Amino acid sequence: MANPVDKPQPDLDGIDAATRAAILVEALPYIQAFAGRTVVVKLGGSAMGDPELARSFATDVVLLRAVGLKPVVVHGGGPQIGEMLARLGKATEFRDGLRVTDAETLDIARMVLGGRIGRDIVSSINRHIPVAVGLSGEDAGLIVATQRDASLGYVGDVVDVDRTILDTLLGQSFVPVISTIGADGQGQAFNINADTAAIAIAEALDAEKLIYLTDVSGVLTEMDDPASLISRLSVARARLLIAEGVIAGGMIPKVEAALAAVEGGVGSAHILNGRIPHVLLLELLTDEGVGTMVTRVAGGAS
Amino acid sequence: MANPVDKPQPDLDGIDAATRAAILVEALPYIQAFAGRTVVVKLGGSAMGDPELARSFATDVVLLRAVGLKPVVVHGGGPQIGEMLARLGKATEFRDGLRVTDAETLDIARMVLGGRIGRDIVSSINRHIPVAVGLSGEDAGLIVATQRDASLGYVGDVVDVDRTILDTLLGQSFVPVISTIGADGQGQAFNINADTAAIAIAEALDAEKLIYLTDVSGVLTEMDDPASLISRLSVARARLLIAEGVIAGGMIPKVEAALAAVEGGVGSAHILNGRIPHVLLLELLTDEGVGTMVTRVAGGAS
Amino acid sequence: MANPVDKPQPDLDGIDAATRAAILVEALPYIQAFAGRTVVVKLGGSAMGDPELARSFATDVVLLRAVGLKPVVVHGGGPQIGEMLARLGKATEFRDGLRVTDAETLDIARMVLGGRIGRDIVSSINRHIPVAVGLSGEDAGLIVATQRDASLGYVGDVVDVDRTILDTLLGQSFVPVISTIGADGQGQAFNINADTAAIAIAEALDAEKLIYLTDVSGVLTEMDDPASLISRLSVARARLLIAEGVIAGGMIPKVEAALAAVEGGVGSAHILNGRIPHVLLLELLTDEGVGTMVTRVAGGAS
Amino acid sequence: MANPVDKPQPDLDGIDAATRAAILVEALPYIQAFAGRTVVVKLGGSAMGDPELARSFATDVVLLRAVGLKPVVVHGGGPQIGEMLARLGKATEFRDGLRVTDAETLDIARMVLGGRIGRDIVSSINRHIPVAVGLSGEDAGLIVATQRDASLGYVGDVVDVDRTILDTLLGQSFVPVISTIGADGQGQAFNINADTAAIAIAEALDAEKLIYLTDVSGVLTEMDDPASLISRLSVARARLLIAEGVIAGGMIPKVEAALAAVEGGVGSAHILNGRIPHVLLLELLTDEGVGTMVTRVAGGAS
Amino acid sequence: MANPVDKPQPDLDGIDAATRAAILVEALPYIQAFAGRTVVVKLGGSAMGDPELARSFATDVVLLRAVGLKPVVVHGGGPQIGEMLARLGKATEFRDGLRVTDAETLDIARMVLGGRIGRDIVSSINRHIPVAVGLSGEDAGLIVATQRDASLGYVGDVVDVDRTILDTLLGQSFVPVISTIGADGQGQAFNINADTAAIAIAEALDAEKLIYLTDVSGVLTEMDDPASLISRLSVARARLLIAEGVIAGGMIPKVEAALAAVEGGVGSAHILNGRIPHVLLLELLTDEGVGTMVTRVAGGAS
Amino acid sequence: MANPVDKPQPDLDGIDAATRAAILVEALPYIQAFAGRTVVVKLGGSAMGDPELARSFATDVVLLRAVGLKPVVVHGGGPQIGEMLARLGKATEFRDGLRVTDAETLDIARMVLGGRIGRDIVSSINRHIPVAVGLSGEDAGLIVATQRDASLGYVGDVVDVDRTILDTLLGQSFVPVISTIGADGQGQAFNINADTAAIAIAEALDAEKLIYLTDVSGVLTEMDDPASLISRLSVARARLLIAEGVIAGGMIPKVEAALAAVEGGVGSAHILNGRIPHVLLLELLTDEGVGTMVTRVAGGAS
Repeated sequence: MANPVDKPQPDLDGIDAATRAAILVEALPYIQAFAGRTVVVKLGGSAMGDPELARSFATDVVLLRAVGLKPVVVHGGGPQIGEMLARLGKATEFRDGLRVTDAETLDIARMVLGGRIGRDIVSSINRHIPVAVGLSGEDAGLIVATQRDASLGYVGDVVDVDRTILDTLLGQSFVPVISTIGADGQGQAFNINADTAAIAIAEALDAEKLIYLTDVSGVLTEMDDPASLISRLSVARARLLIAEGVIAGGMIPKVEAALAAVEGGVGSAHILNGRIPHVLLLELLTDEGVGTMVTRVAGGAS
Repeated sequence: MANPVDKPQPDLDGIDAATRAAILVEALPYIQAFAGRTVVVKLGGSAMGDPELARSFATDVVLLRAVGLKPVVVHGGGPQIGEMLARLGKATEFRDGLRVTDAETLDIARMVLGGRIGRDIVSSINRHIPVAVGLSGEDAGLIVATQRDASLGYVGDVVDVDRTILDTLLGQSFVPVISTIGADGQGQAFNINADTAAIAIAEALDAEKLIYLTDVSGVLTEMDDPASLISRLSVARARLLIAEGVIAGGMIPKVEAALAAVEGGVGSAHILNGRIPHVLLLELLTDEGVGTMVTRVAGGAS
Repeated sequence: MANPVDKPQPDLDGIDAATRAAILVEALPYIQAFAGRTVVVKLGGSAMGDPELARSFATDVVLLRAVGLKPVVVHGGGPQIGEMLARLGKATEFRDGLRVTDAETLDIARMVLGGRIGRDIVSSINRHIPVAVGLSGEDAGLIVATQRDASLGYVGDVVDVDRTILDTLLGQSFVPVISTIGADGQGQAFNINADTAAIAIAEALDAEKLIYLTDVSGVLTEMDDPASLISRLSVARARLLIAEGVIAGGMIPKVEAALAAVEGGVGSAHILNGRIPHVLLLELLTDEGVGTMVTRVAGGAS
Repeated sequence: MANPVDKPQPDLDGIDAATRAAILVEALPYIQAFAGRTVVVKLGGSAMGDPELARSFATDVVLLRAVGLKPVVVHGGGPQIGEMLARLGKATEFRDGLRVTDAETLDIARMVLGGRIGRDIVSSINRHIPVAVGLSGEDAGLIVATQRDASLGYVGDVVDVDRTILDTLLGQSFVPVISTIGADGQGQAFNINADTAAIAIAEALDAEKLIYLTDVSGVLTEMDDPASLISRLSVARARLLIAEGVIAGGMIPKVEAALAAVEGGVGSAHILNGRIPHVLLLELLTDEGVGTMVTRVAGGAS
Repeated sequence: MANPVDKPQPDLDGIDAATRAAILVEALPYIQAFAGRTVVVKLGGSAMGDPELARSFATDVVLLRAVGLKPVVVHGGGPQIGEMLARLGKATEFRDGLRVTDAETLDIARMVLGGRIGRDIVSSINRHIPVAVGLSGEDAGLIVATQRDASLGYVGDVVDVDRTILDTLLGQSFVPVISTIGADGQGQAFNINADTAAIAIAEALDAEKLIYLTDVSGVLTEMDDPASLISRLSVARARLLIAEGVIAGGMIPKVEAALAAVEGGVGSAHILNGRIPHVLLLELLTDEGVGTMVTRVAGGAS
Repeated sequence: MANPVDKPQPDLDGIDAATRAAILVEALPYIQAFAGRTVVVKLGGSAMGDPELARSFATDVVLLRAVGLKPVVVHGGGPQIGEMLARLGKATEFRDGLRVTDAETLDIARMVLGGRIGRDIVSSINRHIPVAVGLSGEDAGLIVATQRDASLGYVGDVVDVDRTILDTLLGQSFVPVISTIGADGQGQAFNINADTAAIAIAEALDAEKLIYLTDVSGVLTEMDDPASLISRLSVARARLLIAEGVIAGGMIPKVEAALAAVEGGVGSAHILNGRIPHVLLLELLTDEGVGTMVTRVAGGAS
């Protein structure tokens, strides 16, 4: 049976049957361990720009679903929002690194996130099998938000996650793709940081895993040495490495998000390099560790 | 108990208890007749621009759901798409009255429909109770489309409607709000005429009613005389009136859509004036006929 | 669509569309708040004698059910039992205001309650839609009773309510109409005071409301001044008014029953005048307060 | 474990273990054959007057339900209605053997059937286990009736049986006990012949058996010779015996009812002598044939 | 209807209808009390060798299931294993009365238990109605075992019982027939004492009863006097009788097993003589006590 | 996470991430196509003797189940039965290539099949995850059989397959492992050819595939040239090749069985070499064709 969507690139002709079987068999314990479990994937950065990577990501999501996991996709879209604001000649002010979000900016953010980025992810998945459904946090009260700080305008924090709509969709094997716009009780929308929203959603769903697809390869002890990758990191050791300055700079917020997730009850949090094709499959279904997995205690469940 | 969202405008102080009760009682046979039935409402034109009417519409949808109907909202958004194209300095060519839709135009249409108009409708409903969920026809294979004519670009026709996602949502009492973008098997999106898509959706759902909220008061035999409104119209009589030229001009496509719907199996199709506040309630739950109802045969089910 | 059963009496011709819509909209928050909740209505006195009021009552029950509430009707029938005893030439002795109930009296009470009064209520509801089912407390162990006092004969107190049969019927959207005859484990029947039985049933069902349809307009601070109606009454204030003698005479047992119900876990208890047509609708679905609502604390849930 | 309700009368002390076991084992094929099947029992005549027989009947119903059958009881009550009419000094006119039923007579019939006779049957069953529920044909549209002949007043014929309420109750293992009052769409009640109503109910339920508990021992070829009992009778043979005059007199309507039932789809119809204690058990669960079983064809299913 | 399988032996011709009915009625309170409850029957010794008794046992199991109980059969097979070992010329060593079980012995035990004894029981039940399903403790992780003592080889103790497969089968009214081979996590099988396994299974199932079909008539205070049978025995009294030496010898392990079961939460444990035909029916459905029932406290539930 | 059971043999260290991912991705369309479908695997010959192959087979079954298929295992065991007969000194007569099966031979066959071979398969699967359940065709009426020919003794043919027990087990994601002993209505067992029984079971289950694990590599056009393997074969072409003598000798019955299956409604039938490790995975989840697939028409569904 031909697979029209995603012809694997590497030439498998030289791979013998025993090797093929061995790789499938290698996946078995992972498939068994994760059967029926929810995995929240926060998609950011490069993965969304490169069509090849977008296809690879969609294939991975479909395969994870096919072998029994329940993937939930959460995405941001800062660069694309900025680009649209620029096209419309709308100036943006930043305060403490955060975009001041007036009503028009909010409108545009909402439009770009839910009407373009989310749509593209849904479309790439549905080319395989029509199971993805785009959601905004405004739908069915999914993300209840409140204003963070009046001076930032319509920037919000998550107050509550109502998992009803997610349960409804996951119960029928759909794949939710979520834009992180929230709303308060009066229907006022707010733009929510996608990394933070992903934590709240993963916690509300008692997710097995929260996976950040980023532009980095995981936590390195030597910034420029890929070989210094830390494959597994306990909360305690992560805190120590931050205190010691080994984890520093732009890596800190990523690790902090991972720590918040596992401390909030998520089984494990992963920081992966979204530029590696099929990085989700490699991390979840093979013995190859390709990023950093953060767990509550050392040697915790994979 | 206060109702924070939608304080009724008319002063009810002078209305005595007997009248209040009588109006509620008047609704009973309609509520019984429509219990559990699906009503597809195509929202167009003015109703979407006026905040007051948007609130009135949202209230009606919530009330219809509360008394046991299953509303499904379908919306278009031509003017808003045009406006955004203009803001972005994107010129549009029309051919036979249809917008030639290149890839960028499609992108913008998709963004405006799903990321702004659909969102606003969802938000106005969810202020009452968080049950609305925005959908694109691309979600879960809802609207399968094909290109109409290469010279028109990404303008599509409906090939099939997969009601699975609608059944999933309606089964949990959610209210779907649908942007009429469809997709073909390769994931290529197409812009679909909302009036036509509404028919296909209503047929796929075996809907009791398909309601067009328009800018006109229904079918008039004398263009400028509201008193000449035809409250009920059979398919046969409608065809006769078209042949006789009584139904003419811009009214013809509206009536044709209504005819297509009832001939396709929908119980009845209604042409209502969306500028009348609470026009849905008045048409569905009171003895007042406020628009034109088209049925397969004369004297058919209301 | 004509409503053959219950043509509303007031002439609605003069009522404009906006007012009609406003009255329907006014009902929305109540419908939402009470959706799926159980309301026990104790029907007594005049409402059962007047055919017009019986029709109005039946319409209200059907409408409440249609908008999603679960009504349960409990009825007494002292006067009708007395009348039948008189027709049969059976003398009755009263002790402390209670009818001494020998075996023959019990037999006649049982026959009148379940075979006539309950039947008439069922019939008036089923003219609209066949959903009412007459029950005796003897059915399916619904009301387990014990003798109150040997000198009173077969007068019983409620020992237990087995809600199984009510859950079975309510789960299929039937409307139970209950005659308050109970039985002990040996199958001996007892006549039970309907006001008391209604409390036990409302508590067993975790009812949202227990409504007494009586001959009075609610609690008045000045006996003869309708304007002195107390619309809402907390338990604490009710006890104070009894202590102060403001609530006095025949009103005391009614208020005590209401207090017992809310203290037993029922959301609120209402004392309404059953002679007002559609009093149930007016109290439950409009902003008009037409009786007295007793709640655990001041300002409690409506 | 003591059985307080129904201490078996015969002294079993002399019965050895092997015999006890053999009798239980004898019941096995019957229990297996009838598991989950519905049996409609029409209770008439003597069985209702004698307390001992009433107890025996109730025990049988409870035992049949306990071993997996679904009993439904239908009862009449002509004599008791006549008695009450007499007590109330209400004269009755008969026309062609049928009681002319004016409004007051109907009221009394309804009261006696549902409020006394049905209640007594329910009570005798519920002493064992609280599973019986008294129903009137007016409940939930169970028996839809129409007037037979204006000159007979409120005497009705069955137009339709709505089995919804019976399915609801049987689905939860309740035992319905039905008074055969029917109603038309306007809520007008009619008195229905119980033998006829039982057929309609048995057909609507696809019953395995319809059993008439009568005052006779079944079909005898020699009126006064119990040994001439015909244990099984096909439709063809029954018609022959009627034509030959062997089945004659008061036996004809009973046999005609049985024939109507099996021709309407009921598995078999039985004419039993309700004066034999535990006649239901003996007929249904032992090899002893104690009455006449009518089947569509000779040698049909027992 | 003829019962081809199990024609009851005693001649019932002389038994009159009243006696037949009385015996059926006598069973009613037991059927009601045990409806839906699980009864684990440990089948041992003679009952398995005698074809007549095997038939009687199968009939009893089918009848108990037909009247609503959930029987589960557990069997051993020491003698048959020994016989097969002898036929194969395989010598057996005993240590402390336990068979030293090497790999080959285990293989043969497993083969005889599951492939012959269990099969025969299944077959005798399925001749009535095809509901029996043979299981090994190895199936679906039913019996998790661990090695008792290396010197005994593959003799195991029960570590855990996973009731999932039993719930699956009982939920569809199948009758599990269990060979007591267990397995550890590595798939190593062990032979488990059937008396002990029966306790663990009964506890895991919250069984109403655990019944040992043995070669003795129950607990006798005078070894050779059947009249000295103790029909009911509390835990306390059993311990006393053991201490006093009244319960002695081979009876001790049987009583200890019964005590372990009731102390582990099983309602009651019975020691019955499997050589009495239909002993299960007699003990469970008649007033005749034919063995010894052990309960937690004196006068406990039967 | 370590996989204690089945460490893949080939060294995967040299396999890069892209290749690993590509092989997993290659499986996706197969997993999607076969999700929820039943696959019957007939296990015969060598695969059962070699512990390594038995492990490989068990791993494949567990992996197929994990990715959403419903495997059902059917096994024979001629050689093992012969061996046991020999050990017991029981002579066997063959007639037309079939073992004459007297009562003792049947007993031994039943014992070896269900008590040893089936057990070993169950055990090898349950080491991964406890989901396998051993069944005989005697269980729950699974295989209804009749004697083929009196001169052959207890050799039977399949009359009917009752899929109830299989549906019960598959519905809870268990894996049935079936010994092909059948029984007639009187409980008489018969030995059934496993190839034939597998067809009947696959047809009764509307299986997607019936897979024969044999000792040959599939259908070869040149007996000794593996390169002459026919990967796909339509019914028509198979008949032609048999007629032409290309398919000949021992291959004929295998191909005939495959033809019978697809003509009986099974999606496709496969003849695979059970000596290839993980041959099930290779055939079902990779683009590598490793055996012969027979379909109704050329180019039919894979």
